[in-house]
Amino acid sequence: MSRQLHFNLFLHDTGHHEASWRLPESDPYANLSLAAHQHLTRVAEEAKFDSVFLADSPVLWSDPGRRPSGKLEPTLLLASLAATTTRIGLIATASTSYNEPFNLARRFASLDHLSGGRAGWNIVTTAGEAAARNFGLDEQPQHRTRYERADEFLEVSTKLWDSWADDAILADKQAGVHAARDRVRSIDHHGTYFRVDGPLNVPRSPQGYPLLVQAGSSENGKEFAAKWAEAVFVAQPTLRESQDFYADLKRRAVAAGRDPDHVVILPGIVPVIGDTEAEARELDAELERLIAPEFAVATLATVLGVDADRLRLDEPLPADLPGEDEIEGHKSRRTLIVEWGRRENLTVRQLIGKLGGGRGHRTFTGTPVQIADTIQHYFENGAADGFNIMPAVLPSGIEAFAAKVVPILQERGLFRTEYTGRTLREHYGLPRPANRLELISR
Amino acid sequence: MSRQLHFNLFLHDTGHHEASWRLPESDPYANLSLAAHQHLTRVAEEAKFDSVFLADSPVLWSDPGRRPSGKLEPTLLLASLAATTTRIGLIATASTSYNEPFNLARRFASLDHLSGGRAGWNIVTTAGEAAARNFGLDEQPQHRTRYERADEFLEVSTKLWDSWADDAILADKQAGVHAARDRVRSIDHHGTYFRVDGPLNVPRSPQGYPLLVQAGSSENGKEFAAKWAEAVFVAQPTLRESQDFYADLKRRAVAAGRDPDHVVILPGIVPVIGDTEAEARELDAELERLIAPEFAVATLATVLGVDADRLRLDEPLPADLPGEDEIEGHKSRRTLIVEWGRRENLTVRQLIGKLGGGRGHRTFTGTPVQIADTIQHYFENGAADGFNIMPAVLPSGIEAFAAKVVPILQERGLFRTEYTGRTLREHYGLPRPANRLELISR
Ligand SMILES: Cc1cc2nc3c(=O)[nH]c(=O)nc-3n(C[C@H](O)[C@H](O)[C@H](O)COP(=O)(O)O)c2cc1C
Ligand SMILES: Cc1cc2nc3c(=O)[nH]c(=O)nc-3n(C[C@H](O)[C@H](O)[C@H](O)COP(=O)(O)O)c2cc1C
Repeated sequence: MSRQLHFNLFLHDTGHHEASWRLPESDPYANLSLAAHQHLTRVAEEAKFDSVFLADSPVLWSDPGRRPSGKLEPTLLLASLAATTTRIGLIATASTSYNEPFNLARRFASLDHLSGGRAGWNIVTTAGEAAARNFGLDEQPQHRTRYERADEFLEVSTKLWDSWADDAILADKQAGVHAARDRVRSIDHHGTYFRVDGPLNVPRSPQGYPLLVQAGSSENGKEFAAKWAEAVFVAQPTLRESQDFYADLKRRAVAAGRDPDHVVILPGIVPVIGDTEAEARELDAELERLIAPEFAVATLATVLGVDADRLRLDEPLPADLPGEDEIEGHKSRRTLIVEWGRRENLTVRQLIGKLGGGRGHRTFTGTPVQIADTIQHYFENGAADGFNIMPAVLPSGIEAFAAKVVPILQERGLFRTEYTGRTLREHYGLPRPANRLELISR
Repeated sequence: MSRQLHFNLFLHDTGHHEASWRLPESDPYANLSLAAHQHLTRVAEEAKFDSVFLADSPVLWSDPGRRPSGKLEPTLLLASLAATTTRIGLIATASTSYNEPFNLARRFASLDHLSGGRAGWNIVTTAGEAAARNFGLDEQPQHRTRYERADEFLEVSTKLWDSWADDAILADKQAGVHAARDRVRSIDHHGTYFRVDGPLNVPRSPQGYPLLVQAGSSENGKEFAAKWAEAVFVAQPTLRESQDFYADLKRRAVAAGRDPDHVVILPGIVPVIGDTEAEARELDAELERLIAPEFAVATLATVLGVDADRLRLDEPLPADLPGEDEIEGHKSRRTLIVEWGRRENLTVRQLIGKLGGGRGHRTFTGTPVQIADTIQHYFENGAADGFNIMPAVLPSGIEAFAAKVVPILQERGLFRTEYTGRTLREHYGLPRPANRLELISR
């Protein structure tokens, strides 16, 4: 069989466009509704998507005046969704800066058991002072420190997931022995950031480790991805930038001693689908009109590290913005936006219009065939192994994508018509990791 | 309607008897199975139980050789169960010593949203060095320190749950205003153990706060319960001790300025049900024969704070055991066991036999009518507001209780035949807490 596309649905209540909740069709309480998430996940599962995904940060992320801003904790929400789905993968975001490895490794092992091997972890280091101030700190740890901690966090987590041998459980009722005691082992990790004795109190899970996903695009972020990530989300506004990122990350994975096919790269796209091109463009325009510019300017100013009054709606970006090195937040998103604004010589208002939809991700506006063509073009020209689908409006955007775009790609032999695997790793064509504890001490 | 009994099912894979997994009927992988937990919860919901409950500790709790010892993380497991149940309450244990309040308050608020107001939190401070060593510490914090931290943890958590006014969300599509910004507020908590700015990133949940449950019986534990707990689990081996505990805790609640009816006391009982008394006793005896004494002696020695070789199977407990003050672990369980052993002049083997079944909880062995009589007697004589049902063997023990004991109590008008409320608080007859932030600043 030829190389196959992978699709992840990025769940986001009423849609990724920040004004989507204001549409007549939208449920403004969808962010808190299990039923709304069940519906989205069912549509994606019926379309044979590899996975659904929830973003997260342990802080009130956006202005609650502006859009639905409360978020249910992702590992819990996905545990609920595990009970009403059977095949689709479930990827939760969780922070290495504001969790303890024992607790988090355990939650992901639990999700993997509960879902029969469908858990994934989007590993983030969490930018921002506001999050730090929910965890006893005055300032956020430095970017580099956050990634060092993330690295040790993964070391501890993988040791914990390996602390039960795959064959530890004997369940010998006759002898009265449940597990082989010498196949359940302490990890005795004493490192820079963590001291964890273990073992984990959850036996090794169906996938061994959850699928490890990552989305940081700074230098530190890419090094981390090359070492640990098995799937990578990325925001790239043009084909050329997607190709550069793709080649760069695969090269880094090889340099880290890994098989480049075991790092699946998934750029984010915002499909805006119309039966005609004109219809698609009209939907795009309607959403842009719904954005309230003052909120958008404030968000943009935060990402760029400047005061909001430095940005004028009908002028281009100021020339003297702080550089990537001067900010401790989302370095790569900042750079992406600045380069985009400068390259296309956009006013702040135009930039906001484009970001409001995709926040730096590529918007594909057009008919189903046009969108399928673009997807195929990226896929066959070294820019993507699949896509992170971020509909501007939900559920309608994923319903349209499932009904109209997916069948075209299936017809072309590029996307599965049935699930062939059971686990999330199997969907993405990734191996189940061997138990390192066994390799070392057997 | 007359005063009504309350029932909680303490979920515990193949049953509370430590040898239950060895019975031919038992699934030795039930501890990791969502389906097994779904079945138990369905039986309890059909019997109109108030709630199900999962114990927990962030450490490998028991010897993995001896019995199924892996445990799925309770908030996740209950989030899964929320999706396949509609009425029954879902109580998860979580530790105040090894979590951050922002993360944990958020998980419980999320569970409450996901379940439509059915979340409960069994608040524990987690005894033991082994747990401490999974979280960067060499030794566990002192008993008193753990309870001080727990108290501040609850202060922070309740502030976070109150950080969104109940009417904060406007969802005004026309004006483009999702929430009233001045109805979502920081908490700016700067205390001894925690600094948390807030607000929470989850709007106030259906119950306001999850049901607050507690089970510590030491002096510190009872003071904490009197201040915070709305339901209390307790292990008491005799009617007399249950009555003393009941009166003492209600008195303490009054002294703390609370309505004593708002603290529901639930002693644990292990029902062993036979159609005849002889049949019930035979089941009891079969289980005792399955206990491997060397494991049980090791556990008992840990609780008592002595070396295992100090305990002789066919002799009574040594006279010179360490006192409650000398151990930092489960003070109240230790005292309970020592007093029980001395009062009934039991050998170590006899004590183990009794503890193996109920671990200090009362075993009620008999016919359905005998068990219903004992329950009614406790309920009507100042010993209990309901019971924490801990079947020795699962699922058969809860199936038998639901089929045979519950109808007798319903017949007598002591237990509901239909749910009358929607939320866990409504089942237990407890009020929804007012939002304190509103009271202060409106
Ligand atoms: C599709 C996608 C999803 C993301 N989801 C999250 C998220 O849920 N939480 C988060 O803190 N960051 C998220 N990020 C941001 C990255 O994880 C990362 O924090 C950001 O790129 C800044 O890190 P860097 O400085 O290493 O680039 C996401 C990025 C992308 C492209
Ligand atoms: C029914 C019941 C359930 C309990 N569940 C837990 C539990 O899940 N985790 C835990 O650490 N302790 C649990 N405990 C123990 C108490 O929470 C408490 O830690 C113990 O009584 C020692 O605390 P103390 O010294 O205040 O009495 C439970 C106790 C009872 C009676």
